[in-house]
Amino acid sequence: MTQTHDLDQAGSGFVRLDGHMADDLSVVNSARVSFAKRSTTMGDAEVGLVNFLMRERHGTPFEHNSFRFHVSCPLFVAREWFRHRVGSFNEFSARYAEVGDRFFAPAPQQIRRQEGKPGAYKFVPLEPELAGEASGLISDHNEQAYALYKHLLWLGVAKELARTVLPVGMFTEFYWTVNARSLMNFLSLRTAETAQQEIRQYALLVEAVFAEMMPVTHKAWRDNGSICP
Amino acid sequence: MTQTHDLDQAGSGFVRLDGHMADDLSVVNSARVSFAKRSTTMGDAEVGLVNFLMRERHGTPFEHNSFRFHVSCPLFVAREWFRHRVGSFNEFSARYAEVGDRFFAPAPQQIRRQEGKPGAYKFVPLEPELAGEASGLISDHNEQAYALYKHLLWLGVAKELARTVLPVGMFTEFYWTVNARSLMNFLSLRTAETAQQEIRQYALLVEAVFAEMMPVTHKAWRDNGSICP
Amino acid sequence: MTQTHDLDQAGSGFVRLDGHMADDLSVVNSARVSFAKRSTTMGDAEVGLVNFLMRERHGTPFEHNSFRFHVSCPLFVAREWFRHRVGSFNEFSARYAEVGDRFFAPAPQQIRRQEGKPGAYKFVPLEPELAGEASGLISDHNEQAYALYKHLLWLGVAKELARTVLPVGMFTEFYWTVNARSLMNFLSLRTAETAQQEIRQYALLVEAVFAEMMPVTHKAWRDNGSICP
Amino acid sequence: MTQTHDLDQAGSGFVRLDGHMADDLSVVNSARVSFAKRSTTMGDAEVGLVNFLMRERHGTPFEHNSFRFHVSCPLFVAREWFRHRVGSFNEFSARYAEVGDRFFAPAPQQIRRQEGKPGAYKFVPLEPELAGEASGLISDHNEQAYALYKHLLWLGVAKELARTVLPVGMFTEFYWTVNARSLMNFLSLRTAETAQQEIRQYALLVEAVFAEMMPVTHKAWRDNGSICP
Repeated sequence: MTQTHDLDQAGSGFVRLDGHMADDLSVVNSARVSFAKRSTTMGDAEVGLVNFLMRERHGTPFEHNSFRFHVSCPLFVAREWFRHRVGSFNEFSARYAEVGDRFFAPAPQQIRRQEGKPGAYKFVPLEPELAGEASGLISDHNEQAYALYKHLLWLGVAKELARTVLPVGMFTEFYWTVNARSLMNFLSLRTAETAQQEIRQYALLVEAVFAEMMPVTHKAWRDNGSICP
Repeated sequence: MTQTHDLDQAGSGFVRLDGHMADDLSVVNSARVSFAKRSTTMGDAEVGLVNFLMRERHGTPFEHNSFRFHVSCPLFVAREWFRHRVGSFNEFSARYAEVGDRFFAPAPQQIRRQEGKPGAYKFVPLEPELAGEASGLISDHNEQAYALYKHLLWLGVAKELARTVLPVGMFTEFYWTVNARSLMNFLSLRTAETAQQEIRQYALLVEAVFAEMMPVTHKAWRDNGSICP
Repeated sequence: MTQTHDLDQAGSGFVRLDGHMADDLSVVNSARVSFAKRSTTMGDAEVGLVNFLMRERHGTPFEHNSFRFHVSCPLFVAREWFRHRVGSFNEFSARYAEVGDRFFAPAPQQIRRQEGKPGAYKFVPLEPELAGEASGLISDHNEQAYALYKHLLWLGVAKELARTVLPVGMFTEFYWTVNARSLMNFLSLRTAETAQQEIRQYALLVEAVFAEMMPVTHKAWRDNGSICP
Repeated sequence: MTQTHDLDQAGSGFVRLDGHMADDLSVVNSARVSFAKRSTTMGDAEVGLVNFLMRERHGTPFEHNSFRFHVSCPLFVAREWFRHRVGSFNEFSARYAEVGDRFFAPAPQQIRRQEGKPGAYKFVPLEPELAGEASGLISDHNEQAYALYKHLLWLGVAKELARTVLPVGMFTEFYWTVNARSLMNFLSLRTAETAQQEIRQYALLVEAVFAEMMPVTHKAWRDNGSICP
């Protein structure tokens, strides 16, 4: 099964489920092995057990499953993503391959002002005129940076050096394989109000896949305050 | 798909594949994302790539897959198994449930003498008469220990205390979820000549499952000296 | 600096701090690098920051420190301990060396009855007469098992096979190296009321070392409900 | 003890040892606990043991130590560094704080051409005239990008959005805490001929610290082909 969620018309940003071994029963059965028991269907007792495990923070039964995602996103989003160490990553390499002409270019209405202190930031839309100017400047800069990158390659500069001029708004792509426990930790941090809006969008797509594959676990997680087990 | 490999007639010891997300293509595609490329079938180039990755010790592309095993084995085997930290475990609990009457009881021909020094041990069969005596003593002891355990429970002693008299030869069971990279590390150590024969048997069953699911990766691993990537 | 906490007169059980790189400032400075700032002493602002990090579950700043413990405990305690994967272990090997004559032998007043259901067990002292009987039976069994072990060795049976008759109450020893984040997770689970009393004793000794080395972090952890960050 | 190795006159790039719990004896003693033995000094037998462990790829005894580094480097270097999952990181945040005016700006003689295929790249100096042009263009671009960043902030754009125009050559800083086993893995990959020269410089400074703190382990690692244990 594959599923692709595009984040823009240009198809630059996406989350695609590339493979999975994930259902709610795996949670139940890895917990019930404590008693040498095993279930074959999700009944009321099984749903209750998943809720109990989540509430009591028994984390290990949520690890016996796996999701493999193929993701394309801006580098500044990927940087936050790769901080999650429990899971596996392989990424596009700007040392080995030429970077494509795809950059994060916020529309004026996406551009925001930051208010408040660390830990309690609020974001409000920037005044339309200023936002328009900022949006235009960012787009122009991306174009310029990419043109310089191509020129440096044309001069013969190694890809690994030429890339150093590219902005952190450039797109990258990667595979990410992760289990539900680590994924819930990711979602707790990256779907939070305090997360940067740009990674939040991706995290919500990931959450949609999780909810579809493991509905009981997903609901238990949401019902218990979306904290990591 | 499930597969059960029994290790004895009594069905006490087994390795059962309970779930999987594992094929050779996942290795290829997680490596090719470096170049933003993707394959849909395993051709010569793909086989060559898997071999290259193994030979050059590129470990991460071997992580984008998952095996979930259900295992029953003696506790002294499980103790070595659980030392492998990259992976997930849930096990039978002798605090919560009553231990069954299943123990490791070596037949006389399994009983061996140890010769040499650490790092270079050799094992030779014990003389038949001595082996017969040892085998009988071990079996008797298991029976006695189990009878004492049941008696302690009957006296009212908590399971978590009563279990302390049970020998490390008692059987336990667990779920183990692991990716191919960590699994190859496990196999490198536990299928080695220097591994204890009792865990080696289990590791060989695990290897058979791995070879069936990811034949190209398995062959590349064996061809490169069975060292971990 | 080394510190040894003995758990019994016989010196069989102990927790010894063998090395450390641990202070509260490391928490502060690894958090303040977010702002390219650095503190050299723990003032009110620094204490406040540690509390903020704990309350908000910012886990990573608690990882930049290290404790190395040398522990001797019964095997059934070590089994629970080794389930904590974030950290490093090296343990005594009953394959390589002869096991000593040291076993968990509960005094009558330690012996308890278990009441209630999993997740909500209560333990009450066993009636003195029954407890006396149980205590004696356990001690006798340990002696018997050890005598059998020695006899099997005398017959020539390999250590790795002879050990299979030894009860899980036998003592083992190991080194454990861990950072404060993982240590707090260990303490949350193993100092809890629901933990088995025998590991709880050890966990409380570990906590005492932690409190001495990182008093501000320890207090913040206790004040915030002793939940893992 | 602290040690700072600067990588440039401007002090932009550095590796500073911020804390440590690291000596060769910790390797010896965590290995010898297998036999319930312990050493207090490094004699010939101890050196021999470290070599044996390295040669035979016994990895765990190399984990009972810890190094805490404070590093400042360009973001494209940090990106490779953070792929090493066994260890702890805390980094400067461009969401919370204003980025400084420090960028990777290669001198003409550092600029190179890439030849060959992935896995077998060679690098040769770029012709001086072209290198001069490239060096100038990169510097100018950094200035321009930083000026745009400051202008966006002045317009009121949130730091987390304004940063998206900054090139991956910008400097960041972080704390990294790691044990010798993971550090040797890092060094194996990042001091290799095939590593990008810019991270290689940093890795060599890290290696110098490692060699000073754990000379026997470092030598054993180098003598055994610098492969990870």
